[in-house]
Amino acid sequence: MKKPNPDDELVFLPLGGSGEIGMNLNAYGYGPAEARKWIIVDIGVTFGREEATPGVDVILPDPAYLADASADILGIVLTHAHEDHIGALGWLWPRLKAPVYATPFTAALVREKLKERGLLDKVPLTEIPMKGKLTLGPFDIEFVTLTHSIPEPNGLAIRTPLGLVWHTGDWKIDPDPMIGEVTDEVTLRAMAEEGVLAMVCDSTNVFVEGTSGSEADVREKLATVIAGCTGRVAVTAFASNVARVESALFAARRCGRKPCLVGRSMHRIVGAAKSVGLLADAPQILSEEEAVSLAPDKVLYLCTGSQGEPRAALTRIARGEFRNVALHAGDTVIFSSRVIPGNETAIHGLYNAFLERGVELITADDAPVHVSGHPARDELRQMYQWARPRIAVPVHGERRHILEHARLAQELQVSETIAPNNGDLIRLAPGPAAVIDEVPSGRLFVDGGVMIDADDEAMRDRRRLGAEGAVNVSMVVGDKKSTILAGPNVLLRGLSMADEEVLEAAIEELARAAEAAFGRLALEQRQDDEAVEGAVMRAVRKAADRLWGKRPLVDVSILRV
Amino acid sequence: MKKPNPDDELVFLPLGGSGEIGMNLNAYGYGPAEARKWIIVDIGVTFGREEATPGVDVILPDPAYLADASADILGIVLTHAHEDHIGALGWLWPRLKAPVYATPFTAALVREKLKERGLLDKVPLTEIPMKGKLTLGPFDIEFVTLTHSIPEPNGLAIRTPLGLVWHTGDWKIDPDPMIGEVTDEVTLRAMAEEGVLAMVCDSTNVFVEGTSGSEADVREKLATVIAGCTGRVAVTAFASNVARVESALFAARRCGRKPCLVGRSMHRIVGAAKSVGLLADAPQILSEEEAVSLAPDKVLYLCTGSQGEPRAALTRIARGEFRNVALHAGDTVIFSSRVIPGNETAIHGLYNAFLERGVELITADDAPVHVSGHPARDELRQMYQWARPRIAVPVHGERRHILEHARLAQELQVSETIAPNNGDLIRLAPGPAAVIDEVPSGRLFVDGGVMIDADDEAMRDRRRLGAEGAVNVSMVVGDKKSTILAGPNVLLRGLSMADEEVLEAAIEELARAAEAAFGRLALEQRQDDEAVEGAVMRAVRKAADRLWGKRPLVDVSILRV
Repeated sequence: MKKPNPDDELVFLPLGGSGEIGMNLNAYGYGPAEARKWIIVDIGVTFGREEATPGVDVILPDPAYLADASADILGIVLTHAHEDHIGALGWLWPRLKAPVYATPFTAALVREKLKERGLLDKVPLTEIPMKGKLTLGPFDIEFVTLTHSIPEPNGLAIRTPLGLVWHTGDWKIDPDPMIGEVTDEVTLRAMAEEGVLAMVCDSTNVFVEGTSGSEADVREKLATVIAGCTGRVAVTAFASNVARVESALFAARRCGRKPCLVGRSMHRIVGAAKSVGLLADAPQILSEEEAVSLAPDKVLYLCTGSQGEPRAALTRIARGEFRNVALHAGDTVIFSSRVIPGNETAIHGLYNAFLERGVELITADDAPVHVSGHPARDELRQMYQWARPRIAVPVHGERRHILEHARLAQELQVSETIAPNNGDLIRLAPGPAAVIDEVPSGRLFVDGGVMIDADDEAMRDRRRLGAEGAVNVSMVVGDKKSTILAGPNVLLRGLSMADEEVLEAAIEELARAAEAAFGRLALEQRQDDEAVEGAVMRAVRKAADRLWGKRPLVDVSILRV
Repeated sequence: MKKPNPDDELVFLPLGGSGEIGMNLNAYGYGPAEARKWIIVDIGVTFGREEATPGVDVILPDPAYLADASADILGIVLTHAHEDHIGALGWLWPRLKAPVYATPFTAALVREKLKERGLLDKVPLTEIPMKGKLTLGPFDIEFVTLTHSIPEPNGLAIRTPLGLVWHTGDWKIDPDPMIGEVTDEVTLRAMAEEGVLAMVCDSTNVFVEGTSGSEADVREKLATVIAGCTGRVAVTAFASNVARVESALFAARRCGRKPCLVGRSMHRIVGAAKSVGLLADAPQILSEEEAVSLAPDKVLYLCTGSQGEPRAALTRIARGEFRNVALHAGDTVIFSSRVIPGNETAIHGLYNAFLERGVELITADDAPVHVSGHPARDELRQMYQWARPRIAVPVHGERRHILEHARLAQELQVSETIAPNNGDLIRLAPGPAAVIDEVPSGRLFVDGGVMIDADDEAMRDRRRLGAEGAVNVSMVVGDKKSTILAGPNVLLRGLSMADEEVLEAAIEELARAAEAAFGRLALEQRQDDEAVEGAVMRAVRKAADRLWGKRPLVDVSILRV
């Protein structure tokens, strides 16, 4: 590898994932400050929750800073296929326009994403084999096999003239992961011998003591639990956890049940897995229609919706609204999943709905039917012992996770620790690690079919509309005369009263307030539309506050003839 | 007690609290079906969360069924002063108009509620001493001392000609509650000897094994933890837990710190406690202004806001927006509280904000600085052993709590178990317990200053406005002519585009869609306002769906001159 120039710098820039779990967008830059070359590692989304961001399904990291340097982006390298690592590609690629690199299973899912957005023919996508290597300008990148909760989880050893960065991606240490190889400890130890400048590492489970456990144990336990069930069984798990899906399929076979997939992403991921040779040994899968006619103790449903998502299969089954799958007293739902923080209320609602139908529930609280895909503290300790980095850079966590991870790294005698925020431009070399700049960062919302800024005025208005409602006032005014020719028409949205009569009276009062405000301006001979609209708006808002104790959005249309 | 008449029935009717934790409204009826006399036990609220029910602060049980029988309501009896047991009184009393009975501390807080709603002089409120008795028609009511997380927690022994109902209210078994007496085991055992027909019992912690623990242990631990702190300390707890407040005040004294209350409800409850002789031995409390000048290790703040409520003192302190209290690196916040399900995200946000400032956090996960006020499974078992009811009626829980509690009661060999839903009219005697009717039940929202139905169209519109936004179209049409004289004016709210130009073009397209729809109707000679508004609305909605992939609320005003 060539020697660094004196003004070369190696920088790390997180634009997502530092401050939340998910929505990863990481960049590494190399070269002199005025002519940096970039690689992007992962480009993911997080999901809007109906309650927190109504109308917004998907949330993306704002790539503006990198988009401005798009000519200098050498490539987008993906560690694994979870949505929080690849989900933003279809939305943001047109602004970044760099070639994309991923291992086969990840590439299979990326292709589907690109197809959905009509980009399949535009994006150069290169498949890298497991343990493969890739050179992008000053970056020599090696894919290092790890274990996680999806096939083909990779860390990236990123070698530069200024040193080796070990970017873990998402990982755990599973001694028996069921699909894929075990953690490539040999390579990790060799990296340490070579010298690891910095380790950029997963913080998700830094508050969890001990280890995360093995998929092998879940596989055994799931089969035992299902063997004890007499009615229909539905297992819910993340579809992307193909090893878990396989565990459920094998459990079905062991228990004399036929498996049936329910939910779109279950079919999508199983298809992608089979396309790269996974699940080859799985039993035959029935369609929902075929499964309907099976005896209850002969079927095993594998469903999406473990987080209580309102439109997911499992939620609709719980409500009795799913066409081909009905669960009743004597049937069992196994939650082979965790409760993602923020989803507690939705998931408890799902539990309540199933229990009301007499359906038995088995969750990870009742039996070890789930293990996390992220490292608990003992695994983090092991990774630091393997890689022995000079600088620890915790990412992939809320602020509290990242700070706790930094504290752990200090305990483990790592020389330098940086706890980054999104937008921190961190110099890793030369010299001590330091935040040398703060660049624009933020979130974009996919709102319906358009991509808008998270702090767009539209979002503020929507929050206000949701909480306070709206009043629309329209009136016709003679072009040169200070008289109202028609209206004011007052329309309310989202405001009510205990009874219809009181509501009618309130609407009349708003109309009177609008008229009076117009009259006052007419007396003052001020009739420009802006003045009239402003005065009417303020008067109506004041009346609404008096009538409802609320501050609705008031819109006024003055039409002139 | 007089003999029952042959057609007398004793019924229990939950209108709140069966299906959620909180918002309790329970009624007992006695007499022949056509002439029942009622007593109401507790009348509480639950709180709207900004995300789930935007604009709604307080949620009430719908009392419509009882309001129709208001002449037959003999009294409203309150077990204790938590908001979910008394908070609806000020809102619903005008529809029920029955005398109110409560022990002194509860009465003190009820008076404040009534004052706020201008009802203090209207509501007959009778103070009942602890262990007091009260006769309301066929109901002989005895207040039985229990332990909980507020002063003066009472269960009610309700004796009727058809048997004794033991209504526990909220309780735990605290051997050393710090304020108030221990659980009145003697009376409970005596009730069992007399024969308990039915026990209506708290289900909150039915999923928690073991026991809830004692306030005495928290008192000791809080003092130890605070003694180990060197900077400023803020303890956050529910203000209504006066024993906990006292524990913090005593800990301050032991650690050479001066206490300072922060947050309105902290002052309100401490005032009420002192008015009934509690906290007599507490150290002097400083005002925020006085506390500002103390050395960091000489002050202890006692704050509201443990649930991350957006406007609470603690949230504003975490944001650095609270005038007289600032916490920095080296200071500590102790969460002497639990995470109420649904509040995880808000509370984690609070943690993140404090950690970002370098403030240390101590939560119930780190040290035993909190105990629950509700019975864990061993306490429930003890209560069933004491009271030995013939019928178990679990209340005060989500469906999953109530069903699990029913299962526990069956395990404990209780002869009959009823798992009620709100609105179930349950006959307790004569004959086997059974749901004999379903009566209207539901929720009311306090929306700003007005009380509306939870399924009012306004709430549906607000949800849609929040998620989809609004389009307002107004236009002026000649009275008899089929031409547009002015407009269409198109106003958007909550809809945006990536840039201003695209947005302008979209607005123009909506206007063209409106014009075209009007034109089509004009050709058909259909000009009544309703037809025009409907056609324009549909055309604009379709265009909006095409442009944004969203379905905003479209309002059309046709003005004629």
